[in-house]
Amino acid sequence: MKESTPITMKDIARELGVSVATVSRALKDSPRISEKRRELIKNYAREHNFYPNFIAETLRNSRVKPVKIIGVIVPQFTHFYFSSILSGIEEEASARGYRIMVAQSNEKYEREVDICKSFFENKVCGVIVSQAKDTAKYDHFQSLIDHGVPLVFYDRICTGVDCSRVVVDDYMGAYTAVNHLIDTGCKRIAFYGFSMRLEITKNRYNGYRDALLNNGLQLDSRFVKYCDNRADAEAITPEILSMEDHPDAFFAVNDDTAIGVLYTAKRMGFHIPDDISICGFTNGQRAIACDPMLTTVEQRGVVVGEEAANILIGQVEGLIPSDKVEKRIVRTSLIIRGTTR
Amino acid sequence: MKESTPITMKDIARELGVSVATVSRALKDSPRISEKRRELIKNYAREHNFYPNFIAETLRNSRVKPVKIIGVIVPQFTHFYFSSILSGIEEEASARGYRIMVAQSNEKYEREVDICKSFFENKVCGVIVSQAKDTAKYDHFQSLIDHGVPLVFYDRICTGVDCSRVVVDDYMGAYTAVNHLIDTGCKRIAFYGFSMRLEITKNRYNGYRDALLNNGLQLDSRFVKYCDNRADAEAITPEILSMEDHPDAFFAVNDDTAIGVLYTAKRMGFHIPDDISICGFTNGQRAIACDPMLTTVEQRGVVVGEEAANILIGQVEGLIPSDKVEKRIVRTSLIIRGTTR
Repeated sequence: MKESTPITMKDIARELGVSVATVSRALKDSPRISEKRRELIKNYAREHNFYPNFIAETLRNSRVKPVKIIGVIVPQFTHFYFSSILSGIEEEASARGYRIMVAQSNEKYEREVDICKSFFENKVCGVIVSQAKDTAKYDHFQSLIDHGVPLVFYDRICTGVDCSRVVVDDYMGAYTAVNHLIDTGCKRIAFYGFSMRLEITKNRYNGYRDALLNNGLQLDSRFVKYCDNRADAEAITPEILSMEDHPDAFFAVNDDTAIGVLYTAKRMGFHIPDDISICGFTNGQRAIACDPMLTTVEQRGVVVGEEAANILIGQVEGLIPSDKVEKRIVRTSLIIRGTTR
Repeated sequence: MKESTPITMKDIARELGVSVATVSRALKDSPRISEKRRELIKNYAREHNFYPNFIAETLRNSRVKPVKIIGVIVPQFTHFYFSSILSGIEEEASARGYRIMVAQSNEKYEREVDICKSFFENKVCGVIVSQAKDTAKYDHFQSLIDHGVPLVFYDRICTGVDCSRVVVDDYMGAYTAVNHLIDTGCKRIAFYGFSMRLEITKNRYNGYRDALLNNGLQLDSRFVKYCDNRADAEAITPEILSMEDHPDAFFAVNDDTAIGVLYTAKRMGFHIPDDISICGFTNGQRAIACDPMLTTVEQRGVVVGEEAANILIGQVEGLIPSDKVEKRIVRTSLIIRGTTR
């Protein structure tokens, strides 16, 4: 695996008859060097296994300063939606010369406070956060803001502090999905959602309700359930599907719940989507692993993450006034697959 | 949303007739305070919405030092296995008073070099990394080691530098899976894997081969394919299943590929698992979203992450000699579900 002694910039410069500065600039894609010459130098470097000894460079150059660090709090890394958002944040941060420090709250208030504390001690330039389900006090967020550390919320917005945020268009996402169910002939549409305490449930419920009412359909409270995971969906759906006038469609606030409905209905002998239509919300990996594949609302987590990082960096760099509360809404889109007609 | 003025440690101390130091210690769960008294103080604090003003505390206390930072390089956040590992790293780091700085290489060598550079500039105490598929030169890793920054590899091990690592037991995982297929009556078992350049493919292939040979079965090279994703599996499987003596089982190196085989076989009219058995490797979210649910090898990403952080912190704190190459193997387990008999 050992390679021969790596060549240096000096070697390249001598070999190609240019200055070391020219080589250095060319390798950094500087526009001060003509494109032709840049390509020549880069190709030569590549062919001769040149790599810049960044550590020697860092040690030599006292002007090198650590990059700025953005603190990111994620409820749980293993949720696909959150990992998509993290990916978007990292992409945007990295492209603009920042690094991210991340921590997961595991939905615990105490951990969130602890994370804020250590982010502050580590002098992060700002914090991007989706709050824990557990969090009902906001002093730790307010403290950061009061001490000049800008905050941007994503997904789960803190209603207790007034600051910038990025959310998806939950209302339109739900409205469009339910409208599609109605357009394809469904008339008795059930709603499975999170606790109504959460903003996202309210907005999705309102979208569901308005789609029904605007299409002249009735809202049937027997079909509106607090249910946000597969196990619960598998537990409550048999009774609902045993009613004589059972729903002919389900709109669920996440894919996991929708998949619980899907397999329960299949087990009970219903054909999907002929007898029962199902629509989820997320468009994660599960949505294409199930059979048939799930119609769902794409939440575009990567874009949410990019927008959040974009606002934060804007505030850090003074492109957005620090006292401006920036609210961005990322549009969702309906992905039609096999669980709807 | 506003609450009444928060109480301070002083208030608690006065109310309970103890010193402020006692309150402070009790809230930090110090064993210097009796458990009974700790509970009393913590309950009082909880009931009166006390929260420690950590920022004032930090600003007041000049001895507060930033926590140490571990740099973590992940090929892609949105892969379920990698996000599980990241979760394990973060849990272990956080429990031991460290924070993590993370970046994704997106499978690009250049980005990996760049990340190493900025991690070094930000004075991380060590780096945990799974290398990019693209990486074939290792000087950036060697440089970090040479400059006293310990490295620990996970999952994709760099064979070009000699340092600590955590991998799963790929050989035994594959051996056990294929043995199960044979035990349940399968005789012609196909293998779908990554490029043989990768250590994990070699190890899984060897486990597959040995399970066949130890059970007196033949290795059939027509059934050994370079195929590591669903689209490719859907492209190549129809031809294989059209052979007269087609395989009666498939062992795939990840769940995604296994699911490609599953749905292709179903579409062609085969019954799963009666006609064809299928086993994957990962046990991610997809494995229980598909129908039937997938038999697969559980890789225990969280444990891999915890072990990696454990080694690194051990080296940083001198619990493990810095020149010792620590190799840990995390055992896999076979999860039997509906795609095998």
